[in-house]
Amino acid sequence: MAKVNLGSGIVNFPMPVAVIGSTVAGKANFMTAAWVSMVSYSPAKLAVTLGNHHHTNKGIKENETFSVCFPSTEHMKIVDLAGLVSGEKVDKSTYFTVFYGQSDTAPLIEEFSLSVECKLDKIVESGKNEIFIGDIVGIHADEKVIVNGKIDLDQLNPLLLGQMTTEYRSLGNKIGQAWKIGRE
Amino acid sequence: MAKVNLGSGIVNFPMPVAVIGSTVAGKANFMTAAWVSMVSYSPAKLAVTLGNHHHTNKGIKENETFSVCFPSTEHMKIVDLAGLVSGEKVDKSTYFTVFYGQSDTAPLIEEFSLSVECKLDKIVESGKNEIFIGDIVGIHADEKVIVNGKIDLDQLNPLLLGQMTTEYRSLGNKIGQAWKIGRE
Repeated sequence: MAKVNLGSGIVNFPMPVAVIGSTVAGKANFMTAAWVSMVSYSPAKLAVTLGNHHHTNKGIKENETFSVCFPSTEHMKIVDLAGLVSGEKVDKSTYFTVFYGQSDTAPLIEEFSLSVECKLDKIVESGKNEIFIGDIVGIHADEKVIVNGKIDLDQLNPLLLGQMTTEYRSLGNKIGQAWKIGRE
Repeated sequence: MAKVNLGSGIVNFPMPVAVIGSTVAGKANFMTAAWVSMVSYSPAKLAVTLGNHHHTNKGIKENETFSVCFPSTEHMKIVDLAGLVSGEKVDKSTYFTVFYGQSDTAPLIEEFSLSVECKLDKIVESGKNEIFIGDIVGIHADEKVIVNGKIDLDQLNPLLLGQMTTEYRSLGNKIGQAWKIGRE
């Protein structure tokens, strides 16, 4: 198969969409992000990478807490809007109904079935971006998405992003069992 | 809706599956990983987080290069196997047909439609894991998956993972346009 080298740039793999919650100047703020990854198994840590100019970054640095909240496909429009407007100009505190876990500065989203509360571990500079690494202190989920003690992906119905093709995607079907099918 | 706090741990959001290529002691080696995220826009950087005990880590440190290769659903079995066995015990150099970009130490995978060549920028310690941040020096794709100069996700047909539920998933349908539908 003929290969083409597209050079450097953003890679168009499917990314999980999340809404990052923070408290900036005493008010809940939200922004949409898709550069999210687990970065430690034990203790469990989650990383989110944001442009260093965002309003959210100030709040995370001030309070050393943030949330990573996972929407379902039904929340696509409000999630997209939360990524289009800056908390510096628009009050996004009313976009979602808020609840809290251990801290009162990591706003969790009532409407979403899965919200993760993080305590800031460290910040890593990466070009014009900042990687916020957080210790996971609570995984808050709706009862309806928990099956056998785990988050069920069909019930969660998560939202995915193709960044270069600017498209939202749903998650497809289960096609095999991991850590097993390779043995067959 | 009643919320349940599952405490700390790995979050079961959909993760992109990738095969990380490296050269260890002069031989191509591969391992499967799903903790992958873009971490810089310009210059473009990709991060992959691995347990610090892996054979792959030695090769990345030795050569300061690695690849992040994205399989399609059809490659599920060999990709799963590459995650089940260690390069310390098994020669995985023959699992895939290899080609190279700028360096001869970041093996790219001929059978996959999308392979990204990275030059190591830095390593960040994170618990018992290491975050390898790489500058993207080449995005190598099959002609057939490039539509209007971009990687087409339907053509790529990427593989996703639900880690806690140990399941592979396909990508679902396009359901909306990002950076636009929120304005409607």
